[in-house]
Amino acid sequence: MTITEANPGYKGYKYVGTRLIRPDGLEKVTGKARFAADLNLAGQLHGAVVRSPHAHARIVSIDTSRAEAMPGVKSVITGDDFPSVDPGHRQYDMCVNIIARDKVFYEGHAVAAVAASTLEQARAAAAAVEVEYEALQAVLTIDEAMADDAPVLHSHMLTRGAEPPAEAPSNVASVTRFSGGDLEAGFAEADFVVEREFSTKPVHQGYIEPHACVADTGQDGHTTIWCSSQGHFNVRSSTATLLGWENTRIKVVPAEIGGGFGGKTTIYLEPLAAALSSQAGRPVKMVMTRSEVFRATGPAPCAKIRVKFGARSDGAIVAADAHLIYSNGAYQGAGGMLGAMTVFESYKIPNFAVEALDVVVNTARSAAYRAPAAPLTAFATETVLDEIAEELGIDAMDLRLKNAVKEGDPSTMGFPLARVGFAECLEAIRSHPHFSAPLGPNQGRGLAAGYWFNIGESSSAIVNLNEDGTATVVTGSPDIGGSRASMALMAAEELGIDPHDIRPVVGDTEAVGFTDITEGSRATFATGRAVVEACRNMVIELRGRAATMMEAEVGDIDWVDGHAVYTGDGDSEGKEPLSLAVIAGKAKRTGGPLTATGSLEAHGAGPSFTVHLCDVEVDPETGVVSIVRYTAAQDAGTAIHPSYVEGQIQGGVAQGVGWALNEEYIYDSDGVMENPGFLDYRVPVASDLPMIDAVIVEVPNPAHPYGVRGVGEAGIVPPIPAVANAIHSATGCRIRDLPMSPVRVLEAITAAGARANGG
Amino acid sequence: MTITEANPGYKGYKYVGTRLIRPDGLEKVTGKARFAADLNLAGQLHGAVVRSPHAHARIVSIDTSRAEAMPGVKSVITGDDFPSVDPGHRQYDMCVNIIARDKVFYEGHAVAAVAASTLEQARAAAAAVEVEYEALQAVLTIDEAMADDAPVLHSHMLTRGAEPPAEAPSNVASVTRFSGGDLEAGFAEADFVVEREFSTKPVHQGYIEPHACVADTGQDGHTTIWCSSQGHFNVRSSTATLLGWENTRIKVVPAEIGGGFGGKTTIYLEPLAAALSSQAGRPVKMVMTRSEVFRATGPAPCAKIRVKFGARSDGAIVAADAHLIYSNGAYQGAGGMLGAMTVFESYKIPNFAVEALDVVVNTARSAAYRAPAAPLTAFATETVLDEIAEELGIDAMDLRLKNAVKEGDPSTMGFPLARVGFAECLEAIRSHPHFSAPLGPNQGRGLAAGYWFNIGESSSAIVNLNEDGTATVVTGSPDIGGSRASMALMAAEELGIDPHDIRPVVGDTEAVGFTDITEGSRATFATGRAVVEACRNMVIELRGRAATMMEAEVGDIDWVDGHAVYTGDGDSEGKEPLSLAVIAGKAKRTGGPLTATGSLEAHGAGPSFTVHLCDVEVDPETGVVSIVRYTAAQDAGTAIHPSYVEGQIQGGVAQGVGWALNEEYIYDSDGVMENPGFLDYRVPVASDLPMIDAVIVEVPNPAHPYGVRGVGEAGIVPPIPAVANAIHSATGCRIRDLPMSPVRVLEAITAAGARANGG
Repeated sequence: MTITEANPGYKGYKYVGTRLIRPDGLEKVTGKARFAADLNLAGQLHGAVVRSPHAHARIVSIDTSRAEAMPGVKSVITGDDFPSVDPGHRQYDMCVNIIARDKVFYEGHAVAAVAASTLEQARAAAAAVEVEYEALQAVLTIDEAMADDAPVLHSHMLTRGAEPPAEAPSNVASVTRFSGGDLEAGFAEADFVVEREFSTKPVHQGYIEPHACVADTGQDGHTTIWCSSQGHFNVRSSTATLLGWENTRIKVVPAEIGGGFGGKTTIYLEPLAAALSSQAGRPVKMVMTRSEVFRATGPAPCAKIRVKFGARSDGAIVAADAHLIYSNGAYQGAGGMLGAMTVFESYKIPNFAVEALDVVVNTARSAAYRAPAAPLTAFATETVLDEIAEELGIDAMDLRLKNAVKEGDPSTMGFPLARVGFAECLEAIRSHPHFSAPLGPNQGRGLAAGYWFNIGESSSAIVNLNEDGTATVVTGSPDIGGSRASMALMAAEELGIDPHDIRPVVGDTEAVGFTDITEGSRATFATGRAVVEACRNMVIELRGRAATMMEAEVGDIDWVDGHAVYTGDGDSEGKEPLSLAVIAGKAKRTGGPLTATGSLEAHGAGPSFTVHLCDVEVDPETGVVSIVRYTAAQDAGTAIHPSYVEGQIQGGVAQGVGWALNEEYIYDSDGVMENPGFLDYRVPVASDLPMIDAVIVEVPNPAHPYGVRGVGEAGIVPPIPAVANAIHSATGCRIRDLPMSPVRVLEAITAAGARANGG
Repeated sequence: MTITEANPGYKGYKYVGTRLIRPDGLEKVTGKARFAADLNLAGQLHGAVVRSPHAHARIVSIDTSRAEAMPGVKSVITGDDFPSVDPGHRQYDMCVNIIARDKVFYEGHAVAAVAASTLEQARAAAAAVEVEYEALQAVLTIDEAMADDAPVLHSHMLTRGAEPPAEAPSNVASVTRFSGGDLEAGFAEADFVVEREFSTKPVHQGYIEPHACVADTGQDGHTTIWCSSQGHFNVRSSTATLLGWENTRIKVVPAEIGGGFGGKTTIYLEPLAAALSSQAGRPVKMVMTRSEVFRATGPAPCAKIRVKFGARSDGAIVAADAHLIYSNGAYQGAGGMLGAMTVFESYKIPNFAVEALDVVVNTARSAAYRAPAAPLTAFATETVLDEIAEELGIDAMDLRLKNAVKEGDPSTMGFPLARVGFAECLEAIRSHPHFSAPLGPNQGRGLAAGYWFNIGESSSAIVNLNEDGTATVVTGSPDIGGSRASMALMAAEELGIDPHDIRPVVGDTEAVGFTDITEGSRATFATGRAVVEACRNMVIELRGRAATMMEAEVGDIDWVDGHAVYTGDGDSEGKEPLSLAVIAGKAKRTGGPLTATGSLEAHGAGPSFTVHLCDVEVDPETGVVSIVRYTAAQDAGTAIHPSYVEGQIQGGVAQGVGWALNEEYIYDSDGVMENPGFLDYRVPVASDLPMIDAVIVEVPNPAHPYGVRGVGEAGIVPPIPAVANAIHSATGCRIRDLPMSPVRVLEAITAAGARANGG
């Protein structure tokens, strides 16, 4: 179902909004598509990483001599093979995370790497690298990190944003504060005040394809890297940074990506493979095991959150205070800051204050995961809102509608909000049959909203017309979630040709202009704008060629539905409309090949709002929560390719439900992860979920020519509170610690029963 | 040595004209560069071609059933697997040459192809394809082709250009006629008239890398082809034509090319590999053997040439008549027409007529070879000029200087000649120490000139700036003879950055705009112009960004030596010059990534003239001719990279000497080639040649921003007559039939001796 608000000036689209069969679809379902691990080069070596068995230790010495002498071994590297890096360096954390220098900060931290003729030889040699450690006390939780006597992970870490400025190092990396209005006065005005605490565990993005790459360094130093990433230009610059090389020494060729969800916005293997290849003079392939993915790549941060809300009896939220602590693993992270930017963003709250801390602990360095930090703040805000509604006897939907932000309202950071579709999403859910459907025994229904701001950044595109009137559209955005299809549709709309006549291509770092990572739901918005810009430049060129062919002034030529049409006052004899194919076919006679580029730093990303409705059934005897019905309405701005938008919504829900119910990193007391595999780390599988009903709401973003907002992230924000509110609806229990696993639910039910029985 | 005439407006170049180490050099000398046969894909099959043992035969039937049942065989194709093609189709000849339909036209003509798991299995299966032929009489020579009772190869072949129009089919494909002045009056004015006949044999381009490709067709029909060619866009369109596919279904990725010299401007294997891959659902690799290269790919045409010249006693050529017959192998070719365009082009001849026939015979379809057809017309013209000089007692150099064409003279086709450097090349040779060096016993010296018109065609380029101020320059021209280096130098000059900071890239058919084949010495001229255009578009953009950064008007910003410089009248405070790197580093803040394209249909290719001086020593007892000294002066326009220009000159000489002395196709009476290998087909090796002294003359081409003419072809034009004139100088014998092999030279010496003895 799609609910559309017409874009100003909207005249109907011919291709945008249609469900083009994905250009990369057949290759992906037949196994023909090449992912990073599918490439093999002649003479290729295999790499293996030596990883720390300690969560926190000083590296006393590394002896690689035994490994170097082993059969088939061609190169062995340690941190000493990379330029030293100063803690003040902008990318210090990334550098020392990829290969440890004097200390290791988590179990699985890379300390050395080996390349050998076979993978077995490489693994054997990696096991033979002798590392002497001086074990240090591991800091595993937020509480441990903030304890007065906590071991300090990084001796250079002075809390950023602290007032007064921090004088002694600590595990608090930064503090972020936002406020508005008068908090005290706000709470004084409230009829009802509620304060709650929440806690969560680290969870992994759970992409199916492990990190993998092949690096091939020639004797002239030029290096080609094939890898799976969310942004190959970033792979290039990050690899170059770590190696101390010039960017242009490296060419990164994007493989297909088997999932990223934020986890492939950073790199782990590429500089190791390049250094090993450089030393060995041979291509080097590296593929992580699943265990390595879990232990050494970025989970989403976990958090402790305390929120306090004050509401008037009419339901108006008048004050809110939040204290967030995000644990970002071993290094500085942005969880707290992003939490602060999202915790109150959905509602108009006149008086508020947020304080967010980012702390470090001895677990893997966290990475982005779909709407980073926001699912946890939504967990807090949306469940407390539910409680307020219950307390005030106001319908949960009405409470949200009453407080929902709209265009012009100030954001947490003070900027006025652009046109958004939050109220429209709430209304879409209210008018959905699900909203009033009856519930069965042990069933409950939860409502929750979510927000993500989305981003713009840099994108580039090239459009080349072929002699036969077809077009190639090259962008620098990996096809994470259907960008080939959406670029083809937008280009088709601009050029006026069938999208099947457009070949969308993901160009490597030497083929296309700089393009930022595909993150922040930016690809269809920003890269789409670059494509539109390139196509519009092409249309200018096409009109000029047509003018030559018609012997007319270019100002008298319009571009209409794929044709150059003469609109001048003169004699129209011999000035019949010319199709793009005809103009392209004559290009050699009118000036040569038809090519155009577009590139921009895209501003005006449109914020996404989404509203979810979730029905659960709770088994009172086991605590098992089953999702029985799920409906999500999301403002896509404009859905360029509705199937992909639905897929993004459904994917976000599936991951959010996993986060809510089952997923968590389990560490032993030494900080060793105990469940680094999909058997013990339980993501939802198809049988765990009902068909998720995705309702696309279209409130076009005025900053995009087709109204695109970006749809990739908001969908993961509401599921945790939606499930929590549904569990409360079914059981009367409010659970505020993740995951809401059978054990925890059963405990809550049991405790509630005991309380009811006066226990 | 370089002799330079300043370009109008020339202010000195910083990078153009320097000898940059070639960007692809280290990869090529270390074996890292990937040629077409270096690619192997998972699941790849190997293809083999079934070739006709007959030079001329009707195909009665093809039975592939036995081959299909053999081990490892995954697909078998014949002409029936391709769309039928009508003789009226523009590419009919190419289509039926790649795979025969009802007839075979030469020994080695492809009739079927097989793909199997191993090459051995494929070859065994190819041998098991049962083809029943009805042998027809083979037509092997020009005389046989033109005999009244000659079997007609193509029943549809009506001589093009015949007057009156041809009514009956024949083996004469076309006739070309040019004339000027009054031939009869011209000859009447002459004091000396001489008429001579010449004959030559087919020769091969002799590239080291055999034709090779890998084709991979997915289930969605999209096909990727990796191959070695002189133009991957042409591979794409030709393959698509043969298969009846849309162009954009095919992506062609250029491998490095191990020589082409014109022989890789057409295709042989790619459609077969694509069809086999399509049928098998697996990648298919095909690599020709050397024997296949000789028997089934294009040699240069051979010719019979009759010329008649009339000169006044002062040396002025007043009339010339030429009758050319070029044999183009089994299909229509352009040898005769190109011969007609070149035979008289070097000299101002007021009265002339040329008639050129193109005929077909039962030998492999001819292909382009460096300055196609021109070496043979130069053989005729330049040796007859030598004879005229001798007869009139005029120095051969003076005779040429007297008659040499210059700017404004009409061409054979009537167009006025652009600025050329013919006289400058003659003077360069005259002033070279070689010209007056003494000769030893049995030695002789030959002078000859050569002309090639060069071409323009379509080219495209993309320039992308990286964040660190380096640039990527993408073009669609395979790097045949140093285009990476020359593109980097021109881009460096335009952008004002060091050429080492420019990464020149050859883009595939999906990465860059349409670009014609690298042929006609066009790449540095036309693709260079596209690069310059792209860079100038980039400079416009850079000036705009600088204006933003300086808060100035773009009209007040000049681009000087890689910097944006404020030249306005206003306060220059805060308007210090900004380097490209600084502007690129701030691109995200000033509008996003910096990208630009350039593309054009390039007109104004500058004709090349070259003058060669060759010393030979003839062994009077064996007839062996040794080249003892060789100097070649060529007008390069401007030598962007002098080392490459010298290399092109030296390469042309080496190939021309081989053509003159030893190379020839030898057929048995049934048309089976008897010497299809480098042991029996003798190209010059290093020990056969002295160091060739290349003198670069620079008379800039006004139609190119740096004066480029193109240098790849003219160098092969004079060697045959230069060697022939040197042999005459050494022995007194004029040899007018190629090759001037020891046997033929000895016969001539013997016959001359017999004549001198009154025999």
